[in-house]
Amino acid sequence: MKLPAWISVANAARSSSSLIRLFPHENPRLPIGRIIAKNRTPRLAAHPLHESTTVGSAIATELDQRHEVIKVGRTRGDHQVDIADATSIRQLFEQVGPFDALVSAVGSVTFKALGEMNDSDFSLGLQNKLMGQVNLVLIGREFANDGASFTLTSGILNRDPIRTGASAAMVNGALDAFVRAAAIELPRGLRINAVSPTVLEEAMGSYAPYFRGYKPVPAADVALAYAKSVEGLQTGQVFIVG
Amino acid sequence: MKLPAWISVANAARSSSSLIRLFPHENPRLPIGRIIAKNRTPRLAAHPLHESTTVGSAIATELDQRHEVIKVGRTRGDHQVDIADATSIRQLFEQVGPFDALVSAVGSVTFKALGEMNDSDFSLGLQNKLMGQVNLVLIGREFANDGASFTLTSGILNRDPIRTGASAAMVNGALDAFVRAAAIELPRGLRINAVSPTVLEEAMGSYAPYFRGYKPVPAADVALAYAKSVEGLQTGQVFIVG
Repeated sequence: MKLPAWISVANAARSSSSLIRLFPHENPRLPIGRIIAKNRTPRLAAHPLHESTTVGSAIATELDQRHEVIKVGRTRGDHQVDIADATSIRQLFEQVGPFDALVSAVGSVTFKALGEMNDSDFSLGLQNKLMGQVNLVLIGREFANDGASFTLTSGILNRDPIRTGASAAMVNGALDAFVRAAAIELPRGLRINAVSPTVLEEAMGSYAPYFRGYKPVPAADVALAYAKSVEGLQTGQVFIVG
Repeated sequence: MKLPAWISVANAARSSSSLIRLFPHENPRLPIGRIIAKNRTPRLAAHPLHESTTVGSAIATELDQRHEVIKVGRTRGDHQVDIADATSIRQLFEQVGPFDALVSAVGSVTFKALGEMNDSDFSLGLQNKLMGQVNLVLIGREFANDGASFTLTSGILNRDPIRTGASAAMVNGALDAFVRAAAIELPRGLRINAVSPTVLEEAMGSYAPYFRGYKPVPAADVALAYAKSVEGLQTGQVFIVG
């Protein structure tokens, strides 16, 4: 059986040059994609973790090979942003200008035993990891080139919960659902996916007691899922890693 | 194969007497289960719908046959509560006292085209349908008898999204994930499930334009899932109806 062209090219789209050749009408001015990579700042409540700066670095390593990557952090990177502040997000996009892909590996949630949680313990996750990432989409879409993609980060805990993980699970479930629903309404060929990784090998030094029995994955493997989202054609997907 | 007693009784647990006989240690004073059924008030933004008062009535019809059901509404019922207000929720439980099951078919979200939504359009769903129901659990658990159950309501839109459904999808995904995670941390044999129904036959008069191609289900069928959650033994489940 001969595959239609768009399927065979999508399968080969790991090289950005073939990706761009595919969509000359969508990226007329950019020889290579312009990507905003938003690294999570280590603001995880209760047990601060550097997991997502690890992910952010791995994503940058993966994508830097083929794209102009603009790195954004809370205090570091080429630009700074506080994702809990919509004004700060808007300023970021006004500084950066048009882009072809936004990758967000960002967001804080509260890790706490459910028995000690009240509703205020869920606010951080809803305002930061959930609505912070959603606002990167809601505001960022105004600055996104036609055909640009948004890749958000959820995580394993809604699929495979742990003690203290109720807020993380809630937020991850909300994010996975948001990308599925938003994908069908985005205009101009804009795409949106989530990457849902298990715990990282690089984070097991501090995370291991919370993730007994979980098989960790290297950050470099997680980074591949972001490349698939950015350089492939899928939308409305949750890419599970691990 | 002979089933162990607890399975065969769970399968037969549609009669509350057999259910209660199973747990004499957990319900020493109550001849039949005492259930709090929270009907949703028709406060759905954008296109107000009476879907969940329909669900609430069907749940009450199903459970009234075998249980003392205390009906709670925003303005009607045996007791009133504003689920967006934690103080109001606490007052409700102080009035009602101990209970064996809480059934919530409640919550408002904003239905709006994604292109017209900003972050404030997501607040209603997060504060009302999501955290309102979560607060029924976080506060209600203090008043719940050992072995009591919580049954929350999500919905189809995170699995099968529609135009204008991004907030509903987000909230449903968050709720489905919350019950999975919370179930493993609840003490004293407390259980928690979600019911995730498709659109109701009874709601198609006004919902049909939003749900073309969706096969609706009668409210009475949806009510069965609540009975399964209340009178069965499962926990951490999302019962899909339709």
